[in-house]
Amino acid sequence: MSSQRVVRMAELEIDPDQLQRYLALLAEEIEASVALEDGVLSLNAVSIKESPHKIRIIEVYADQDAYVTHLQTPHFLKYKNETSGMVTSLVLVDVDPVIMRGKP
Amino acid sequence: MSSQRVVRMAELEIDPDQLQRYLALLAEEIEASVALEDGVLSLNAVSIKESPHKIRIIEVYADQDAYVTHLQTPHFLKYKNETSGMVTSLVLVDVDPVIMRGKP
Repeated sequence: MSSQRVVRMAELEIDPDQLQRYLALLAEEIEASVALEDGVLSLNAVSIKESPHKIRIIEVYADQDAYVTHLQTPHFLKYKNETSGMVTSLVLVDVDPVIMRGKP
Repeated sequence: MSSQRVVRMAELEIDPDQLQRYLALLAEEIEASVALEDGVLSLNAVSIKESPHKIRIIEVYADQDAYVTHLQTPHFLKYKNETSGMVTSLVLVDVDPVIMRGKP
């Protein structure tokens, strides 16, 4: 099944006092991942308007190998290390794509 | 602010007995919306692996006008009418985009 897309949803809560710094690190990590890794198809992060320290990220990888490779990249490891003291809750939800469509 | 993107997340629960029919109607509606409406930029729907009747949809519209227009299209109204007896819970979460990146 290694040729099957891997889709995940991350539900995070961030220390509100460190939110701006966290968002900058997240943006840097997402930019680098989509630009540099062939197997990272999309990373879409949103914050909940009423609780902006609550972040949702939908992640689409070409396959399981691409996901494992992503976890070992310098930009992901930098993000992971530098944000470890900012993330107060992290839930990774395994999801299946139903249908994903966007403008070309 | 009508030129600002509108991003929303819908959290749905579907009657498990009607899930396959619901997913077909959702797929039809998403295909039509992204193909036919200039202002619908992306619609990405996933289901939670452990609870496949729980659906999450992240919706990106060009602006508020595009969103209001979308709600009045024949394909959206068809979806809304035909699925009304299938959706047991619907929460619309207003979100702000943090960063949204995908392969071209």
